[in-house]
Amino acid sequence: MPVNLSAPVAAQLLPVAGVSLGIAEAGIKRANRKDLLVIKLEDEATVAGVFTTNRFCAAPVTIAKEHLATNNSIRALVINTGNANAGTGEQGMAAARTTCTALAKLLGCTPEQVLPYSTGVIMEPLPVDKIVAGMPQAIANLKVDNWYDAAHAIMTTDIVAKAVSKQVRIGGQTITITGISKGSGMIHPNMATMLGYIATDAAIAQPLLQEMVREAANKSFNCITVDGDTSTNDALMLIATGMSGVQITGAECVSMQAVITEVATELAQAIVRDGEGATKFITIQIDGGKDEGECKKIGYAIAHSPLVKTAFFASDPNLGRILAAIGYAGVADLDVTKLKVYLDDVLVAENGGRAMSYQEEDGQRVMQQSDITIRVVLDRGAVDATLWTCDFSYDYVKINASYRS
Amino acid sequence: MPVNLSAPVAAQLLPVAGVSLGIAEAGIKRANRKDLLVIKLEDEATVAGVFTTNRFCAAPVTIAKEHLATNNSIRALVINTGNANAGTGEQGMAAARTTCTALAKLLGCTPEQVLPYSTGVIMEPLPVDKIVAGMPQAIANLKVDNWYDAAHAIMTTDIVAKAVSKQVRIGGQTITITGISKGSGMIHPNMATMLGYIATDAAIAQPLLQEMVREAANKSFNCITVDGDTSTNDALMLIATGMSGVQITGAECVSMQAVITEVATELAQAIVRDGEGATKFITIQIDGGKDEGECKKIGYAIAHSPLVKTAFFASDPNLGRILAAIGYAGVADLDVTKLKVYLDDVLVAENGGRAMSYQEEDGQRVMQQSDITIRVVLDRGAVDATLWTCDFSYDYVKINASYRS
Repeated sequence: MPVNLSAPVAAQLLPVAGVSLGIAEAGIKRANRKDLLVIKLEDEATVAGVFTTNRFCAAPVTIAKEHLATNNSIRALVINTGNANAGTGEQGMAAARTTCTALAKLLGCTPEQVLPYSTGVIMEPLPVDKIVAGMPQAIANLKVDNWYDAAHAIMTTDIVAKAVSKQVRIGGQTITITGISKGSGMIHPNMATMLGYIATDAAIAQPLLQEMVREAANKSFNCITVDGDTSTNDALMLIATGMSGVQITGAECVSMQAVITEVATELAQAIVRDGEGATKFITIQIDGGKDEGECKKIGYAIAHSPLVKTAFFASDPNLGRILAAIGYAGVADLDVTKLKVYLDDVLVAENGGRAMSYQEEDGQRVMQQSDITIRVVLDRGAVDATLWTCDFSYDYVKINASYRS
Repeated sequence: MPVNLSAPVAAQLLPVAGVSLGIAEAGIKRANRKDLLVIKLEDEATVAGVFTTNRFCAAPVTIAKEHLATNNSIRALVINTGNANAGTGEQGMAAARTTCTALAKLLGCTPEQVLPYSTGVIMEPLPVDKIVAGMPQAIANLKVDNWYDAAHAIMTTDIVAKAVSKQVRIGGQTITITGISKGSGMIHPNMATMLGYIATDAAIAQPLLQEMVREAANKSFNCITVDGDTSTNDALMLIATGMSGVQITGAECVSMQAVITEVATELAQAIVRDGEGATKFITIQIDGGKDEGECKKIGYAIAHSPLVKTAFFASDPNLGRILAAIGYAGVADLDVTKLKVYLDDVLVAENGGRAMSYQEEDGQRVMQQSDITIRVVLDRGAVDATLWTCDFSYDYVKINASYRS
C-alpha cells in the first residue's frame, strides 16, 4: 500500500489556461479502463522534455525526441497505457507514427506537431487500431478542468494517482503549475522518469524551458529508485502555455525553477511512496562528499541493495547491511573509519564500526516508522545529495510475478 | 529450495595429503551448531587467496591479507560462522588478532602463520571468547578425512553444503583437488567469493599459486550473482601442500589451472543453485562483445534486474524486461537493432524487437524449466562472457526479512 500518500483531490487540481485534456477507454489491454489521454495545447505553448537513456528506448520516445527537435510548435501529446511500444522494432516506429498522423488529422495540425507516449508491457505489438479508434472519444472529452481524470488515465500498477498543483506570484501576477505522473515499478530514472507532465501558464522560451525541465528532473525524478530498473519509456515533459501573460526571463527564472522543481519532487516522491509493494518511504541523504557522482554512487548502492530493502521491510535494524553497501559502492579511496551513519537522529556507525552510543532499541524504534531517513556523513568534501527509495516486500515479488496476467 | 543441486556425498570427497580439518560447536550465534573450522597445513604447503574489494572489508580479511603478504609459511586457517566481524572497527581488528594468537599457541606456530575468516551478521562484536574456547575441540577433531563436516561447519543460510573433489593425472601421477564453499545471499563477488577453500597435494610455488587462484576466481566466483550485494567478507583460498611430490611448472600449469577452475566453477555454481529463495538456475551468456567489460555489464544488468528475476520466478516469458535491462546496462554505443536474444534455443528478439518466428508457447516451454540459458549475441566483436544467477522469489524476501532472528 502507498506509504503516507493521499490520493489527489479533484477540486484542488488547478486548470492551466491553454491546456485541455481528454481521456478515453480504448480497450488497449483490457476493456472498461481509462487508458488513453490526449493533451491539447494552444498555439503559443512551448514544450520541453527529457527522456530515458535506455538504449532500447521505446518507439514513441524516439519519435517524440525527433518531433521536439524539428519544430517549435507542438500542438498535442497522446499517451496510452497497457503497451509500452518498446522492443518493437520498425513495426513499433510505424505504429507510433500512425498514432501521430491520426491525431493530427483529427486536430487539424501536422503529425510532427504531435508527441506520442506509451507505457505498459515491453516487446508486444502496439494495438494502434484501438488507439486510433479511441481518439474521437478522447477529443470529445477535452476540457481544461480534467487533470484528475488524466492522472488516472496514465496509471499502470500505480495504486494512487499522482497530481500536484501550485501557484506562485511572479511580477505581481499569479502563475499556475499543475503536473501529473505515473510509475510504480521499473523505476530508476536516468535523465527522466516514467511519465510526468507538468504545465504552467507562464510564458517561457523553449531553450530556457529545456534547461528548466532538465534541472527539475535532476533534482527530483533522477533521485528516485524503486527497483533499479531504468525503463525504456521514461519521459518528463514541461509545457508553458504563456496564457497568464507573464514572461519568465532573468531573475524570475530562479523562483519559477524552484516551484517547478518542487512540483516535480512531489510527483517523483509520490512514485516512490506508491512503489510496487512499498511499506516504507526511505530518504537517503549523503553529506560531505567530494562530488555529486560519489554521493549518488553510495546513495544508490544503499537504495538498490535487496538486503537493505528487505531489512527495512522487516523493520529489522540489521544495519550492517548499509555499511556493506557503502563499502561496495565503488568509491575506491573511501576511508570507512571517517564516515558516520545515522538512522534519523540515531548515530549508528562511526570509526569503522558500530557507534559506542548505539542501542539496538533506538534503531528498532526508528525502523518501526513508515518514513525513515538514512544519513551518511562522508567527511570528504562539501557536496550533498538526497535520494528517495522504498523497501522490498513480498508484494513486490507478487506484483512482478503476475504483472502480465 | 536448491536448484538441481545434490548434497555432497562424504565418501566422494577425497582427502588432500597435508591438509587436516577439525570442527567444533562453539556456540557463536546459537548452541548445538557446527560453527568453527580449523584447517591445519603441513610445513611445505603454499597458500594464495583473493579477497573482497568492499571498502568495509571485515577485520579478518584485513588480517588475512596482511599475514599472507608478510610470510610464506601459513600453518593454519580458522573460520567461524554466526558473526562477520565486519563493520566492527578497532575492536574487531583486536578480536581477529586474538583469534590468531590463541590458535597459534595451541598449534605451536606464530600468530602470523594463521589466517582468520568470519561470516555472518555485520556490525556486531565478535564473541572471541567463545571462538577461543571452542578451539581445543576443533583441534581434537583434526583429520584429513573431514571435508564433509568442514563443508557443513561453514554454512550460514545455505541449505546444501558445497564440496567438490577432482583428480587429474600430471607427470604420470595422480593429483587430488578438493574444495568447499559457502554462500547463499549477499552474493556478487568482486575478485573473490563468500568463502571458498580449495586444496591440492600438488606442489605449486606461491607466486604461481596466486596467479592460479586469481584466474580461477575470475572464471568462476566472479561470474555469479544472487542479489548484487558484494559481501564484506569474501575470500577464496587455494592451498598446495606438495605432498604428492608433483611440482607444477611450465606446461603442466595449463592442465592444473583447468582443473582448479573447474572445481571453483562447480563450487561457485553451487552457491547460485542454493541462492536464497532460488527456484531457477539461470546461465547468462553474452557473445560477440567488443571486450569482457561490456559483456559483463550487460550480463549483470540482466542478472541484477528484480523485474527479470521475478518474471523467471513466475515462469512468465515477460521477456521485454530482458531487452530493457540490456538497454540500460550502460553500453553507450550499443546498436539494439543488431543484437539477438535467445532463451535456450528459442530466438526471442532481433532487429530491435520481437523475432517474427517467436511464439509465446516456445518461451513458455523454456520458462517452465529449472535450468535456463539466456543468450545475447551482440554482433560487435569476438569476446564472450558467461555469468550465473538465480531468480527472485517470495522466499528471498522471507529469508532476508528474518535472517537475524
